[in-house]
Amino acid sequence: MLFHVAMDVALPHDMDPAAAAELKAREKALAQDLQRDGRWVHLWRVAGRYANVSVFDVDSIDELHDLLSGLPLFPYMDIRVTPLARHPSAIDDDLRSTR
Amino acid sequence: MLFHVAMDVALPHDMDPAAAAELKAREKALAQDLQRDGRWVHLWRVAGRYANVSVFDVDSIDELHDLLSGLPLFPYMDIRVTPLARHPSAIDDDLRSTR
Amino acid sequence: MLFHVAMDVALPHDMDPAAAAELKAREKALAQDLQRDGRWVHLWRVAGRYANVSVFDVDSIDELHDLLSGLPLFPYMDIRVTPLARHPSAIDDDLRSTR
Amino acid sequence: MLFHVAMDVALPHDMDPAAAAELKAREKALAQDLQRDGRWVHLWRVAGRYANVSVFDVDSIDELHDLLSGLPLFPYMDIRVTPLARHPSAIDDDLRSTR
Amino acid sequence: MLFHVAMDVALPHDMDPAAAAELKAREKALAQDLQRDGRWVHLWRVAGRYANVSVFDVDSIDELHDLLSGLPLFPYMDIRVTPLARHPSAIDDDLRSTR
Amino acid sequence: MLFHVAMDVALPHDMDPAAAAELKAREKALAQDLQRDGRWVHLWRVAGRYANVSVFDVDSIDELHDLLSGLPLFPYMDIRVTPLARHPSAIDDDLRSTR
Amino acid sequence: MLFHVAMDVALPHDMDPAAAAELKAREKALAQDLQRDGRWVHLWRVAGRYANVSVFDVDSIDELHDLLSGLPLFPYMDIRVTPLARHPSAIDDDLRSTR
Amino acid sequence: MLFHVAMDVALPHDMDPAAAAELKAREKALAQDLQRDGRWVHLWRVAGRYANVSVFDVDSIDELHDLLSGLPLFPYMDIRVTPLARHPSAIDDDLRSTR
Amino acid sequence: MLFHVAMDVALPHDMDPAAAAELKAREKALAQDLQRDGRWVHLWRVAGRYANVSVFDVDSIDELHDLLSGLPLFPYMDIRVTPLARHPSAIDDDLRSTR
Amino acid sequence: MLFHVAMDVALPHDMDPAAAAELKAREKALAQDLQRDGRWVHLWRVAGRYANVSVFDVDSIDELHDLLSGLPLFPYMDIRVTPLARHPSAIDDDLRSTR
Repeated sequence: MLFHVAMDVALPHDMDPAAAAELKAREKALAQDLQRDGRWVHLWRVAGRYANVSVFDVDSIDELHDLLSGLPLFPYMDIRVTPLARHPSAIDDDLRSTR
Repeated sequence: MLFHVAMDVALPHDMDPAAAAELKAREKALAQDLQRDGRWVHLWRVAGRYANVSVFDVDSIDELHDLLSGLPLFPYMDIRVTPLARHPSAIDDDLRSTR
Repeated sequence: MLFHVAMDVALPHDMDPAAAAELKAREKALAQDLQRDGRWVHLWRVAGRYANVSVFDVDSIDELHDLLSGLPLFPYMDIRVTPLARHPSAIDDDLRSTR
Repeated sequence: MLFHVAMDVALPHDMDPAAAAELKAREKALAQDLQRDGRWVHLWRVAGRYANVSVFDVDSIDELHDLLSGLPLFPYMDIRVTPLARHPSAIDDDLRSTR
Repeated sequence: MLFHVAMDVALPHDMDPAAAAELKAREKALAQDLQRDGRWVHLWRVAGRYANVSVFDVDSIDELHDLLSGLPLFPYMDIRVTPLARHPSAIDDDLRSTR
Repeated sequence: MLFHVAMDVALPHDMDPAAAAELKAREKALAQDLQRDGRWVHLWRVAGRYANVSVFDVDSIDELHDLLSGLPLFPYMDIRVTPLARHPSAIDDDLRSTR
Repeated sequence: MLFHVAMDVALPHDMDPAAAAELKAREKALAQDLQRDGRWVHLWRVAGRYANVSVFDVDSIDELHDLLSGLPLFPYMDIRVTPLARHPSAIDDDLRSTR
Repeated sequence: MLFHVAMDVALPHDMDPAAAAELKAREKALAQDLQRDGRWVHLWRVAGRYANVSVFDVDSIDELHDLLSGLPLFPYMDIRVTPLARHPSAIDDDLRSTR
Repeated sequence: MLFHVAMDVALPHDMDPAAAAELKAREKALAQDLQRDGRWVHLWRVAGRYANVSVFDVDSIDELHDLLSGLPLFPYMDIRVTPLARHPSAIDDDLRSTR
Repeated sequence: MLFHVAMDVALPHDMDPAAAAELKAREKALAQDLQRDGRWVHLWRVAGRYANVSVFDVDSIDELHDLLSGLPLFPYMDIRVTPLARHPSAIDDDLRSTR
């Protein structure tokens, strides 16, 4: 099941740089784990912004929320989730969730 | 070069059904051609709406505009384009444009 | 899987009254069928508006989109879908989807 | 009498973690009490956000405001209330408030 | 129970003048009836707009919706309803609904 | 002359509780004085929000601004003022300003 | 008493040109009368738009609404009214309404 | 004097194709004249939209409004004008208006 | 050349009162100087808000930006500038900029 | 390849003035370097705001994002990027990117 997820990050300007770096490192590691296990399917940077556009493939909405709310940057992000259905003009079966 | 493209369709309620069907058929055929030639990379339906979220892979902005403004449904769509950069946490090289 | 669905209806002012009545009758019949089979879980009228707030329980996003886009009033509605996860403070197991 | 209530929570990033935990524990306990006594009828998490969508069943608007403004997280929440009427296509009598 | 109701009217420019006049006459008569029976408590014109701000005093949300959706101008209005609670600094008991 | 005034309050989370309490007490006393002298005609709480909807009856816009900007909570409020005219369907003369 | 009034005009594209011209001529004549009698104090065109920004000087809100709703273009305009108070840094007494 | 001008075009779907073509041809001819005489300095297409972003160099705001309101597509465009000042970090004198 | 300028002020709640007073005093002095030399033509308070609506008469956009960005309160203001053209129905020549 | 880039700057009010000055100096130096090497093609100040409108000419979206996110003021800016295509009415070939 696919969800379009748009994330905007806003770190407080007075955050300790070491704490910010550690947070980002943990975010990156987890993001890469989730990409490797096939649940964070796409991850793009929005040009000019500290933001991304992503697609997740999960078995349930609860699983999606657990993933997103477990991200180290979650307290600093504004996240909008849009459920995606198969488009009748899409030709590529592998675009569909296999779950 | 990747672009995130969100399209909302609004056909006039008084459009002739045969004209609408013909328009949609041409739109579908062209959308599938563009998917096959690798430029319309992703195409998803936004659940509950006559709308899609897409990703295009093109060589230039002019090429992107030509593709979008050439869609049969173009006069009836509201389209927002967002340029996508590589995300530093993305692991998958094939997510990138090969152009 | 639960989805919060907000629907606003806007019928053209010049729609034939008989056609409008027939459309609404078919909408009502289908809405009641979907409530009876357990997929349209909640349906409330927004006070003062030709609009509703609903909750759907479906097996997939594709199923949700098929239901919504199959509603007779679909061409005349603005629909926003929000995926719902279990709330950690919710006490009532039967609030969850059983699918 | 039913009200649709959407709540978004924004805790200050510099809030003392113990104070935040204590606040959330009190919020959870009260939310569960209000669910048990039948006034907080539905409580769902909005996927990907520190937010919920709820339905309350109360005897008066004053009672609703007292409940909401008495929530421990009230000073940190943006709350939008929408009054709900019975929908003419709703089939299920128990969806209605019994008050 | 008090509700703040904001109504904006937009008649189609091509509406038959006689039909419009008849609609407005019926709206006015009903609005005055509802004021006389105490349910349409306040009715003000928003300066410079074909719009009003009103306060209704009703026994239930269903009653409010029946009143509003029964207005002759309802198909041509955008209506936003806000539930009103007693303000702790209000001194005047007769501001409260007596229902 | 009547004005519709909507006020939203946002106290800083780190405000000293005693200072906040003193501010609110002064606000309440002044609000009640202004109600008693007939200039703050209506005062309602917006359900679920630290906000009110009010109607003022004043002799001039300068007088209105002096009243509003003199409120102890003024620095913490977002205020929107809407001028109200007599509605042609209003029946009740005492709804009108007597000034 | 001064009011800031912003007006946006949107004539239907299919309006009869002669009717539109007649409407505009009557609007212009009335606008000039109101300027001459001192109630339409300022009238500026918003560059690039069929819109104006104006200041009116009237004795009451009812008078303002009568003036605005009596404009020939009123049915085709979106109007926002903002009441203006004397600014403490303004030096020029003749900026104030003399009414 | 430079102005940033954003134009969105929305032709009625039922406009006669020949009339639309004639309108666009006149718009193009005039746009090219204004570019040649140095007043329409930049003209770009917004990718995916029937819209442009432009920069005009004019001697006065009246001149700008005359140019814009004289465009054949003016009745069908939404135009937003933003005045541009010299940026303190700009190095290129020829970016400035020579008027 | 006339520009409509809307300014909203938001001083930080923790600003030192003496510093704030000094800032406002300097702002007032400069605002009065600019009114006296004819460039700050109109200055009104928006009722109920720490905001003003102004009209400036300047020789160039650079001059306008220098004036506005030189205001002592500039770092605390949100400013929107709208260029004003002569309105075809305006009768009063002295409304026009004499520059 | 041309991109329209709008940047709004918001420095924290409590930023150390020396740090702010150093940041702005580095921003200016880099902005001028990028103008000199032809990638920051246009840079204008939005009148009355701490904001700019710019046009960049880059070989790829990744290059654009690297430039923008490398700006010293990037953490304090809200940036919106719009891809620009050649306009069919543009006459001037040198408006096009030469890359």
